[in-house]
Amino acid sequence: MKNFMDNDFLLSTKTGRTLYHDYAAKMPIVDYHCHINPQEIYEDKIFSSLAEAWLGGDHYKWRAMRANGIDEKFITGCDTSPFEKFEKWAETVPKLIGNPLYHWTHLELQRYFGIFEPLSPATCGSIWEKANESLKKLSVRNMIIMSKVKVICTTDDPADDLVWHKKLRDDAASPCRVLPAFRPDKAVNIDKAGFQEYLIKLGGVCGYAISDLDTLKKALKERLEYFVSLGCPAADHGLDYIVCDRSADANAVLQKALRGEKVTTQEADAYKTGLLCFFAELYRDNKVVMQLHYGATRNNNPRMMQLLGPDTGFDAIRGEAGSGEAIGNLLGLMSHNGDLPKTIIYSLNPTDNIQISAAIGCFQNADYPGKLQHGSAWWFNDTKRGMEEQLSTLADSLVLANFVGMLTDSRSFLSYTRHEYFRRILCAKIGDWVENGEYPNDLDFLGKMVQNISYNNAVNYFGFSGGSHA
Amino acid sequence: MKNFMDNDFLLSTKTGRTLYHDYAAKMPIVDYHCHINPQEIYEDKIFSSLAEAWLGGDHYKWRAMRANGIDEKFITGCDTSPFEKFEKWAETVPKLIGNPLYHWTHLELQRYFGIFEPLSPATCGSIWEKANESLKKLSVRNMIIMSKVKVICTTDDPADDLVWHKKLRDDAASPCRVLPAFRPDKAVNIDKAGFQEYLIKLGGVCGYAISDLDTLKKALKERLEYFVSLGCPAADHGLDYIVCDRSADANAVLQKALRGEKVTTQEADAYKTGLLCFFAELYRDNKVVMQLHYGATRNNNPRMMQLLGPDTGFDAIRGEAGSGEAIGNLLGLMSHNGDLPKTIIYSLNPTDNIQISAAIGCFQNADYPGKLQHGSAWWFNDTKRGMEEQLSTLADSLVLANFVGMLTDSRSFLSYTRHEYFRRILCAKIGDWVENGEYPNDLDFLGKMVQNISYNNAVNYFGFSGGSHA
Amino acid sequence: MKNFMDNDFLLSTKTGRTLYHDYAAKMPIVDYHCHINPQEIYEDKIFSSLAEAWLGGDHYKWRAMRANGIDEKFITGCDTSPFEKFEKWAETVPKLIGNPLYHWTHLELQRYFGIFEPLSPATCGSIWEKANESLKKLSVRNMIIMSKVKVICTTDDPADDLVWHKKLRDDAASPCRVLPAFRPDKAVNIDKAGFQEYLIKLGGVCGYAISDLDTLKKALKERLEYFVSLGCPAADHGLDYIVCDRSADANAVLQKALRGEKVTTQEADAYKTGLLCFFAELYRDNKVVMQLHYGATRNNNPRMMQLLGPDTGFDAIRGEAGSGEAIGNLLGLMSHNGDLPKTIIYSLNPTDNIQISAAIGCFQNADYPGKLQHGSAWWFNDTKRGMEEQLSTLADSLVLANFVGMLTDSRSFLSYTRHEYFRRILCAKIGDWVENGEYPNDLDFLGKMVQNISYNNAVNYFGFSGGSHA
Repeated sequence: MKNFMDNDFLLSTKTGRTLYHDYAAKMPIVDYHCHINPQEIYEDKIFSSLAEAWLGGDHYKWRAMRANGIDEKFITGCDTSPFEKFEKWAETVPKLIGNPLYHWTHLELQRYFGIFEPLSPATCGSIWEKANESLKKLSVRNMIIMSKVKVICTTDDPADDLVWHKKLRDDAASPCRVLPAFRPDKAVNIDKAGFQEYLIKLGGVCGYAISDLDTLKKALKERLEYFVSLGCPAADHGLDYIVCDRSADANAVLQKALRGEKVTTQEADAYKTGLLCFFAELYRDNKVVMQLHYGATRNNNPRMMQLLGPDTGFDAIRGEAGSGEAIGNLLGLMSHNGDLPKTIIYSLNPTDNIQISAAIGCFQNADYPGKLQHGSAWWFNDTKRGMEEQLSTLADSLVLANFVGMLTDSRSFLSYTRHEYFRRILCAKIGDWVENGEYPNDLDFLGKMVQNISYNNAVNYFGFSGGSHA
Repeated sequence: MKNFMDNDFLLSTKTGRTLYHDYAAKMPIVDYHCHINPQEIYEDKIFSSLAEAWLGGDHYKWRAMRANGIDEKFITGCDTSPFEKFEKWAETVPKLIGNPLYHWTHLELQRYFGIFEPLSPATCGSIWEKANESLKKLSVRNMIIMSKVKVICTTDDPADDLVWHKKLRDDAASPCRVLPAFRPDKAVNIDKAGFQEYLIKLGGVCGYAISDLDTLKKALKERLEYFVSLGCPAADHGLDYIVCDRSADANAVLQKALRGEKVTTQEADAYKTGLLCFFAELYRDNKVVMQLHYGATRNNNPRMMQLLGPDTGFDAIRGEAGSGEAIGNLLGLMSHNGDLPKTIIYSLNPTDNIQISAAIGCFQNADYPGKLQHGSAWWFNDTKRGMEEQLSTLADSLVLANFVGMLTDSRSFLSYTRHEYFRRILCAKIGDWVENGEYPNDLDFLGKMVQNISYNNAVNYFGFSGGSHA
Repeated sequence: MKNFMDNDFLLSTKTGRTLYHDYAAKMPIVDYHCHINPQEIYEDKIFSSLAEAWLGGDHYKWRAMRANGIDEKFITGCDTSPFEKFEKWAETVPKLIGNPLYHWTHLELQRYFGIFEPLSPATCGSIWEKANESLKKLSVRNMIIMSKVKVICTTDDPADDLVWHKKLRDDAASPCRVLPAFRPDKAVNIDKAGFQEYLIKLGGVCGYAISDLDTLKKALKERLEYFVSLGCPAADHGLDYIVCDRSADANAVLQKALRGEKVTTQEADAYKTGLLCFFAELYRDNKVVMQLHYGATRNNNPRMMQLLGPDTGFDAIRGEAGSGEAIGNLLGLMSHNGDLPKTIIYSLNPTDNIQISAAIGCFQNADYPGKLQHGSAWWFNDTKRGMEEQLSTLADSLVLANFVGMLTDSRSFLSYTRHEYFRRILCAKIGDWVENGEYPNDLDFLGKMVQNISYNNAVNYFGFSGGSHA
């Protein structure tokens, strides 16, 4: 029997252990997609308690607590103390056997706080004391440095002034490069509330009214160029599903929406398709990586939406069929006027994995090894099984050695251990293949491969070393 | 090499073995969803042969025999002897490597008949003799007692008089509590043959004509209350797919159907949606657990349907997409007028597993730990792999410790070993996690968890101890 | 640690090793579905180099090279040498860890060339020399004989004159039986370019104009009978998705297409459904096995389609939902006028596996054990994981022992090692079951089962021994 989450956690073969300890573990981190607040880095935030650091904004943990029957007042309520909330979390954790939250919790306790006991009602008090003591010195910048994070890409609206990114750029003591990523969902989601208001806001930032598709594209292009001037290496799109519809003229649909009329689903799809094709060219010309995330259904619980608003743990998976065909069609359309940008595609439905790998395999070329990427296991799939499944599917149908690897997608500065979790799973899988006789025991080659997937591939793919993002 | 199906069957780790033998195996059984006939319990039926007990109504076995090329006369035919049928089953069994029927068959031979030889043409005769000898004394009540079954929930139509449940309630020698479950599919399926006739029948039971939605609701409410007066803890709905359509008025659709006009698919969906929302409130108010089963496509073989009728082994899986979004929408709609009832959701398509877990995670709250449940692997998924997959998905995204566990869904009194099969798989999985260092080796805590998932969680969730169902 | 791809490759249990070495490995090969060119067998082609043999037409390898960023000129280009292409392949191979191409490559090097070193840039030159030397003597016929291939079924258009099949039939030195398979896709695909031209061509072969459904059916029947006269044991249909639509009259749709009018998707579906039902009867009457392949989306990359044409590595997976229900409906419809032919169904989307197994389970009968078959893991699923998944699903819900087993689906004469790969995976899985106590250690019975799945089942199912195909 292996010890609980010791140094060889998840590493059952000697080859896996060697690959992890001698190669993967030594690599720094590029976190090319997350949702942290750059202001907190600039201001070097100190968390008042482990409750704030862990439970302040993490809807993964909130969902687990709700599924454990914890009263909402201990989750998002204002009239309970941080310690009371932490107690409820400590009560929930032991029941989370098999859940990635169980492993994330203990990896974070181990790496950031030197705490190796399992969290439970019995250890709740002592862990609270010890971690809070550590947190006094463990500022956000220290967390980043401890985690060897070299680059962080945030997620930013085109209308954002990126003031904190500028300050960080100019701060010689910045713990790492903090780059913006361009997420123009509000300009794409013509069928969602707030679209018109958003275009007014965006026009305000640009200094002219957005009155048609041309002015919208002009504004988006200007903003992307502004983002790029601050090192923006990537854009990101959150799509309900992969659209590919040319049955309506995008400008006509936009005009209709600007008049305040409701657009049909088909019109919205056509507008989005047109805009996505525009973005693909824009990103290609600016050497910006395009990320497409799809498959979430948001705000499923109307009562809780009214109480707490979005991003509070009430999202789920759409499970739309046929995304493989849709990806093929959309990429085909995008490539009509020339090369695609580098593109990473992520679905929230793991059923789509093999379809994604097959579809992007039709658009690979000599521009770059692994130019199109099957994105890392995301959100509900960000689990041991989910990562194993994504890695296996990728290896089955693409070139695993070219994978750009893990990201946190997190709102927390303590989530960098998810990279460790991923690297252990990666090394374990490769170790299994080797010790099962499925690949030669060539540690030099495999060690480099593991280092590449852990770090170098992302650095090169996003252009973090040298080039326009140096 | 492990011995064939010995005491440690499926238990490859020491931790798994301890959890199973010292904790899980000792627990009684709650079978909260099955299709057995309560009359056979009341009358303490004696089976005339193993052919009657095994092959009399088990369409799982019938399908396996057909897939093995056995002539239908040896399956459902009248002009073959029970032993001839049994011979054909014995001929089929050795070919079922990897099939749960192989394990179910031998678990039943071991536990009920003390037979430890594999069934094959070579052993067919001796097993037939020995088992039939045992069956003389192994009445239905003895099977229930041997299996330590404490509660059985049958599946009953609202128009049913529940006469056998009443007799069993009043029978001091009843081997366990036998409770009705409310399955109003015939009142929901407005688009299927027999709907009008059914409403006439239901009205007849209630003593008034069902002429509109109000009278229908009145009748259903009365019948549910009658069921509850006999201890009914749960309702069950078999849906082709998850509906959520409000484009038509449910009463208008009902009126159309009552006039004998054909309703459209959309109208039927709207009617069903309306009725399901009514049921959700009704169940909540009566503290009845709502079960939703979806994803079956019935009676695929028209020639065999004509010969043998429904439920004879010609059903399959629909594989509809998008059920995650639909579940979110339906639960959102149901929760519009207040809290949801406790709800368990099962899909016949394992692709839906992660969607179900994600969707119900949006509706958990402090009413009860694990108020919404991802139902146990069902029918075509009631296999070792299917159960492992369901358990893993549940653990990944919800709280495994709160799972209400296994049911038989069976028509047979010899199927209680499916609980043993489930418990072994559960303990094996937990043992693997522990011995792989993924969870602390805390046998006290894990032993209780296993006991809860095996028995206590269901007892508490359905309210079998104390309360209105005491 | 096991050695790299040694004699016990993939066989981790003693039982698995015994089953493979003592039973499976000894069996000859029936390759009942492939895309090789019979002319090359007749003419006993000699490949000029390993580049021609491996890279001349294998779009699996082309895709892997593109995903590795190799320039197209080294893939399908004319201005690079065979060795330059081979160098690029050797550069790609080490990166393909986890990819079946890695295993196929080395199985082929081992079995056909006696080369046991891994292919890499370091070994590229020596392997090139050694393999090319071997290829001078390793003609196509020798490859077939070395591989113990007894029957090869090619894939042929109804208009084909089968001249090479006839020559091979009459060639006493033919290394194996080479039989045509009937693939009338061009007559079915009423919605694709070239349909009218094809009917003119087919009519030309038959000697009369195809002017309506009756003449079309007459022509197809004549051609099938011609194919059968040359031993054709099987037909094959490549469907985008499973159709089952009776909303239009097939002849009316055909007339519309013959007038050069565009048919709607629904009309096309109705036409295809009608024709498929016709084919089902035709095949049944001629004792021809019907194969249905569905779920590919073709030619996703329009720019590369223009450059290279179809079947060059730009296909992917549709991922349509609901195929389980559609299969049930189509088979139900086909069985309306009598028994179905033997039928094998394959989907490109592994999500469909359990739906296929469940659907065909509704149509099994005493005509033949395993009359309907869940086809072997196909194309993007032709991987270790894909085969394990297909075998497990088949075993879960059908009768594994009746499986007709593997095919190559290949364009290459070096692909017969895919049968070895499959047999190792099959034996490993059975070995695991036995050594885990899930099935008795009955090597005689299991050995026969493995031999049947490897060879005998296909021989008997397709009628290769005796009967009309003797």
